[in-house]
Amino acid sequence: MKLLILNGPNLHRLGRREPSIYGSDTMDIILQRLQAAYPEVELRYAQSNSEGALIDHLYDACDGGVQGVVFNAGAYTHTSVALHDAIRGCELPVVEVHLSNVHTREPFRHKSLIAPACLGVVAGFGADSYRLAVEALLHHLAK
Amino acid sequence: MKLLILNGPNLHRLGRREPSIYGSDTMDIILQRLQAAYPEVELRYAQSNSEGALIDHLYDACDGGVQGVVFNAGAYTHTSVALHDAIRGCELPVVEVHLSNVHTREPFRHKSLIAPACLGVVAGFGADSYRLAVEALLHHLAK
Amino acid sequence: MKLLILNGPNLHRLGRREPSIYGSDTMDIILQRLQAAYPEVELRYAQSNSEGALIDHLYDACDGGVQGVVFNAGAYTHTSVALHDAIRGCELPVVEVHLSNVHTREPFRHKSLIAPACLGVVAGFGADSYRLAVEALLHHLAK
Amino acid sequence: MKLLILNGPNLHRLGRREPSIYGSDTMDIILQRLQAAYPEVELRYAQSNSEGALIDHLYDACDGGVQGVVFNAGAYTHTSVALHDAIRGCELPVVEVHLSNVHTREPFRHKSLIAPACLGVVAGFGADSYRLAVEALLHHLAK
Amino acid sequence: MKLLILNGPNLHRLGRREPSIYGSDTMDIILQRLQAAYPEVELRYAQSNSEGALIDHLYDACDGGVQGVVFNAGAYTHTSVALHDAIRGCELPVVEVHLSNVHTREPFRHKSLIAPACLGVVAGFGADSYRLAVEALLHHLAK
Amino acid sequence: MKLLILNGPNLHRLGRREPSIYGSDTMDIILQRLQAAYPEVELRYAQSNSEGALIDHLYDACDGGVQGVVFNAGAYTHTSVALHDAIRGCELPVVEVHLSNVHTREPFRHKSLIAPACLGVVAGFGADSYRLAVEALLHHLAK
Amino acid sequence: MKLLILNGPNLHRLGRREPSIYGSDTMDIILQRLQAAYPEVELRYAQSNSEGALIDHLYDACDGGVQGVVFNAGAYTHTSVALHDAIRGCELPVVEVHLSNVHTREPFRHKSLIAPACLGVVAGFGADSYRLAVEALLHHLAK
Amino acid sequence: MKLLILNGPNLHRLGRREPSIYGSDTMDIILQRLQAAYPEVELRYAQSNSEGALIDHLYDACDGGVQGVVFNAGAYTHTSVALHDAIRGCELPVVEVHLSNVHTREPFRHKSLIAPACLGVVAGFGADSYRLAVEALLHHLAK
Amino acid sequence: MKLLILNGPNLHRLGRREPSIYGSDTMDIILQRLQAAYPEVELRYAQSNSEGALIDHLYDACDGGVQGVVFNAGAYTHTSVALHDAIRGCELPVVEVHLSNVHTREPFRHKSLIAPACLGVVAGFGADSYRLAVEALLHHLAK
Amino acid sequence: MKLLILNGPNLHRLGRREPSIYGSDTMDIILQRLQAAYPEVELRYAQSNSEGALIDHLYDACDGGVQGVVFNAGAYTHTSVALHDAIRGCELPVVEVHLSNVHTREPFRHKSLIAPACLGVVAGFGADSYRLAVEALLHHLAK
Amino acid sequence: MKLLILNGPNLHRLGRREPSIYGSDTMDIILQRLQAAYPEVELRYAQSNSEGALIDHLYDACDGGVQGVVFNAGAYTHTSVALHDAIRGCELPVVEVHLSNVHTREPFRHKSLIAPACLGVVAGFGADSYRLAVEALLHHLAK
Amino acid sequence: MKLLILNGPNLHRLGRREPSIYGSDTMDIILQRLQAAYPEVELRYAQSNSEGALIDHLYDACDGGVQGVVFNAGAYTHTSVALHDAIRGCELPVVEVHLSNVHTREPFRHKSLIAPACLGVVAGFGADSYRLAVEALLHHLAK
Repeated sequence: MKLLILNGPNLHRLGRREPSIYGSDTMDIILQRLQAAYPEVELRYAQSNSEGALIDHLYDACDGGVQGVVFNAGAYTHTSVALHDAIRGCELPVVEVHLSNVHTREPFRHKSLIAPACLGVVAGFGADSYRLAVEALLHHLAK
Repeated sequence: MKLLILNGPNLHRLGRREPSIYGSDTMDIILQRLQAAYPEVELRYAQSNSEGALIDHLYDACDGGVQGVVFNAGAYTHTSVALHDAIRGCELPVVEVHLSNVHTREPFRHKSLIAPACLGVVAGFGADSYRLAVEALLHHLAK
Repeated sequence: MKLLILNGPNLHRLGRREPSIYGSDTMDIILQRLQAAYPEVELRYAQSNSEGALIDHLYDACDGGVQGVVFNAGAYTHTSVALHDAIRGCELPVVEVHLSNVHTREPFRHKSLIAPACLGVVAGFGADSYRLAVEALLHHLAK
Repeated sequence: MKLLILNGPNLHRLGRREPSIYGSDTMDIILQRLQAAYPEVELRYAQSNSEGALIDHLYDACDGGVQGVVFNAGAYTHTSVALHDAIRGCELPVVEVHLSNVHTREPFRHKSLIAPACLGVVAGFGADSYRLAVEALLHHLAK
Repeated sequence: MKLLILNGPNLHRLGRREPSIYGSDTMDIILQRLQAAYPEVELRYAQSNSEGALIDHLYDACDGGVQGVVFNAGAYTHTSVALHDAIRGCELPVVEVHLSNVHTREPFRHKSLIAPACLGVVAGFGADSYRLAVEALLHHLAK
Repeated sequence: MKLLILNGPNLHRLGRREPSIYGSDTMDIILQRLQAAYPEVELRYAQSNSEGALIDHLYDACDGGVQGVVFNAGAYTHTSVALHDAIRGCELPVVEVHLSNVHTREPFRHKSLIAPACLGVVAGFGADSYRLAVEALLHHLAK
Repeated sequence: MKLLILNGPNLHRLGRREPSIYGSDTMDIILQRLQAAYPEVELRYAQSNSEGALIDHLYDACDGGVQGVVFNAGAYTHTSVALHDAIRGCELPVVEVHLSNVHTREPFRHKSLIAPACLGVVAGFGADSYRLAVEALLHHLAK
Repeated sequence: MKLLILNGPNLHRLGRREPSIYGSDTMDIILQRLQAAYPEVELRYAQSNSEGALIDHLYDACDGGVQGVVFNAGAYTHTSVALHDAIRGCELPVVEVHLSNVHTREPFRHKSLIAPACLGVVAGFGADSYRLAVEALLHHLAK
Repeated sequence: MKLLILNGPNLHRLGRREPSIYGSDTMDIILQRLQAAYPEVELRYAQSNSEGALIDHLYDACDGGVQGVVFNAGAYTHTSVALHDAIRGCELPVVEVHLSNVHTREPFRHKSLIAPACLGVVAGFGADSYRLAVEALLHHLAK
Repeated sequence: MKLLILNGPNLHRLGRREPSIYGSDTMDIILQRLQAAYPEVELRYAQSNSEGALIDHLYDACDGGVQGVVFNAGAYTHTSVALHDAIRGCELPVVEVHLSNVHTREPFRHKSLIAPACLGVVAGFGADSYRLAVEALLHHLAK
Repeated sequence: MKLLILNGPNLHRLGRREPSIYGSDTMDIILQRLQAAYPEVELRYAQSNSEGALIDHLYDACDGGVQGVVFNAGAYTHTSVALHDAIRGCELPVVEVHLSNVHTREPFRHKSLIAPACLGVVAGFGADSYRLAVEALLHHLAK
Repeated sequence: MKLLILNGPNLHRLGRREPSIYGSDTMDIILQRLQAAYPEVELRYAQSNSEGALIDHLYDACDGGVQGVVFNAGAYTHTSVALHDAIRGCELPVVEVHLSNVHTREPFRHKSLIAPACLGVVAGFGADSYRLAVEALLHHLAK
């Protein structure tokens, strides 16, 4: 079982960027914890600040035998029709995740353009959102 | 550890109502599975079609030693300011759940009035959404 | 043949409440006239000011062998997604009725949230709207 | 008693045009059935694809001793202020009818510009909508 | 002189719920103070979290000889057309009150659906809003 | 000097249609008065309930040596982009007139689609609006 | 017969300000021409850049025996509810005028807040708009 | 104790302007009644039709030892951000009052731009709104 | 192979009307060029300023053996639901064409009500838009 | 004659991605067919999932002697102001193309941000849209 | 070289009013610093709380030989079309300045009605915004 | 002191692209002039057409000891939430600059998504906007 954890813009700074909103764990630590919790799953990780590169990562996942994607699209969640199309196009189950509860923040973060193309959404649980999304994907793929 | 699973309008028909959208498991089966998965947690369950009764359930949970709530508010998600206020008022961590991915459905289901008062949101994983929400609450309460 | 006549909030005051808009016939008189006109049909009647109780009545009708519903949801017509879902969930043909022509009144009465879940709509004919809706249901069920 | 059945654009194709939405009865058959059901009423019929011609038909009805109008304005329902004005101007009771339940279709069909000028609305019962509208008019005129 | 003090959802928790917004006085204390200030007035009190029950209370007041209502509809202020209709239907002077200045809070609290049916509005003075509303009613009824 | 007085839908009923809004003078009387006031001007008159025929009248005026148009487009004022284009296309000065002050009426009468293509607007003076528009045209053409 | 010609903000610069839009005649010249054309009418003139002073002028007109007002409110046309109220309050017939055809300009000039309080509107005829408005008032007052 | 009663545009005509909406008491009478009811309070009064002068009055009050303001901003309630800023800037408790229930009137009167800067709002009780606002201020200042 | 070239309002003036926008070729010349380019296709042509007549032309085409339609609906593109319905009703492939690039013009020309019922859209290439649409239809029909 | 065929995000998957919407031809096949049809034209091809790289391709075309661009911007059509600016900036004629009829799809695909900067639009003809756009460009460049 | 520094409503309180937003420097100090920095420029200063007086100041500047204006219109920035017109009318280069970054504040401060009439905008640098605006004007006038 | 001058999409063409809007100076010349004016400041420069690369530049600046950023985000100003987040994330003072006065251009350029994350905004002064922004930053950093 291969899953891709895919992070969008600004998330390479996790742990350093606005920790009161996003928490103080770096992505390295989150990934180590995740891998430890699911030793039987091959977790791949990719991050990019570029919308186009994220699209490339989705198709690469699809071509590279990945079976599901945990996707924190960051700010592109709210502005990218192209990622919506790529999620549909790559034909993998994708779970949208957010560290923060986006509904408590600015109005422009309340609308997700990619959610309609995803399997489901997990938001608001800090770093634990990633674990819950992996749980959700594994359960979904086991069906 | 006591958690309340709280269901809003029409959800007493789970398994019978529009199974292509909501799945064919009844709530009884979902609850049995949940309890089996978390034997150490005391899971309480309540359902009502009445907005007022749901508000009562939230305060009763708070007064009755419940430590967290998994809340599928159904259609009231999209219309109830009173439940938003009750979630804030009862001062418990509440996780909003949905069986379906509401973002793939009618526009009036895209907006949640209760999400800003909740800890987080889990949507789109069918009956598994409840388990993920319990996971999220347990992790949150363990902090 | 069993049909349910279901009335929503404030309609228990029919004949007393704002007669210039709603007419001076009480619901008792309207029901007697209806029953006299359709002696072969078993007409049941329920009214509630509570959104939740109306949902209960719809499912009770469904479970109690009722074959169609004439539903004047009153003000909940314009605000209730939960009733929309209940109409879909109970899988009975439901005819939305209004005594007044809602389109000549305040803008917030021009939009029906339940109409998309109903078989059809009859509005503006005073107490006669109920008879026309029964006619419509009988014709529909005869097909 | 003279009533006008007035049909707007595209309705001359009834029975041939998109039968899954509009049914397979032609207007001829519908009119024959209606006349048979109300032998004491003189039913006149007119149809036009032209907004202007429909206005003319409304005034002609008024001048020609017609006492009420059953009006399926088709797509002009949603775009014509001029028909709204003509209905007010001809000072006859007019019942707006639709074959389909317009509220289940595209959003641009949810708004009626002519309803505020009409006595009432009947929508969603296929060809039976015409009979119910005649019923409504006869009951109204008998008062 | 009989007046009804009617409270809507979440207001049974007054004094305990978000005291920074709503103050720390319980409703019992507020009522005692009110009764002491107006010994000649019979003050009745009712509270419900249910929209339907609030409608019932309004009609009961009307039938029970109450001459005016001080109504804090809480969150239903912003979502209930049914309460608007009940205020019109019960034909009593009703004063809308709020503890907080709703205009300094979330945008969804800026719009009142019930205000157009009320005599007037008093908002923002904490528990004193109730006293001012009683004052307003007594002055109005004395005319 | 030739001018066209052009009237849109429902205006053939002037004097008979809703006299409280539109006055009790018929168009014949208004035209006689106008001709008497401006004996040196050849006043032509046309009316149609059809948007297409009004477009034809505008081009006929242009081809027939008319030098200016007084145009009461009635309800088409608010819905017709085609008349906007025809006014631009016929390259004559056109004055938009209304009998009533449209700004005191329904919101859908507050927006004019044809005004941006016209020389100017005169509204609210009853039958005198036509005279003022002729005045305006003569003054404009004299420049 | 006394009429007030009242000009709002920036109109003291007429003839100097953006002549391609507003023409090159100064207000002095326009007033002289107007007075010459209506020697039997006492024309008063006032201009202010201040919304408050314009309100004062309207009430002074009312108290000073003026029988009608030609009002070019300039930019306040689009922003002033206070002038709307003053026009209603002074209970004189007021004609709204504009030099330019406001409908061909920026969208924020398409909406008039004062028009619903006025007798009628004349717009787009340059300085001649004032003459037409005087004509309209005289005709109105003669009735 | 010094309080300022501050009135905005058109309110100098109270008692004469549209008495069906605003009542027939002049402001002089209202002030006399108020002063008689609160002999221990020094009531100052100011009115202006000018937005700028109202801002000046607010700061003068602040500099002149006034401890609270009862402010009926009239039409500026709905259009003035500058008064909002002045209320914040003068740092006095200000109570917004209206004679009429603004929510029963035109939509442009439903929105208050100054309310978010005020202590609270009293609306709909005619001249008694001023007394209630003084009551509210005295109670607030006594805390 | 029979194709209909159908033109809507104002297009009979092509070559004379606003040539800077629409070009200086008349429709006769455009049709001759088209016929010369496609000698094997029978090209029919119809134009009307009337929405109703355009609907008639669409159904006549359908009944007369026409296999596809090139339709420049002019201004009705932006306002006609009835033409949308007629295109669906006639069940022929219809290509929407425009001479100008409508997206560079007024906002009310950016929205096409008929496009969702058409096969595709060609806009902005002047008279060449017709040739491209014929190309598109022939290619489509050849499949 | 050199033309650039430029494809935006997700279009490298043509033939594999959602073939029911986009067809089953790969871009290679489409390009071969195009080149065969226009042997005298040098067709260049570029594709990128990155908004920035597409901007680079437009300027490279401009600097590299390309005379026109056929641009399928995919999802960036609906979200990119930067591509709008680049089209204006590179000063080449650009034809916007779409495989599908975007007007029959989600509302967020109905608005093109780049169309106002383009020569024209061709949409809805599958792979043939590219050929029609080349036709349009060649015809335009031949003028 | 003469420049006018013009301040709108509430800015006479600079240094005293909400210093956390606007800083603690008074306007006197800011002006002294400015004059010291630009000894060769004659800096004039005016402030008013009245929209009308600000219009007067703009025209006086224009008539009095001022060559450019630094304008902090305060709250009128967001509500005044009349100031927009005055800036256009006085034909001087005007730089809009704000002390605070208005985009971080309430939504009604995000829109400037005067910016389209200004040379440019400087916002967010506290008192230094004035110096930057003078710099901008001097550089502009030197061209 | 190190400052970054960062330019977004299309700005590498400065001096060549639409000079009537953006001026004829190239960025090289602008930078030389800037460096000459501030010899004590180390000015770095970066430009990219890619949203993702611009995010990278912001974090590189932050990591590379840059103390402030002058950022002309070009078209991304109006569409990029990701850049808003990056500006917040890099925790440097950033000044938004524009060459043109964006408020005089298309409506989609009136809204800045990045301004709420910036220190302030300078717009409309051509190449001089960069100098003013450097001035603003130096003054801010000197505090």
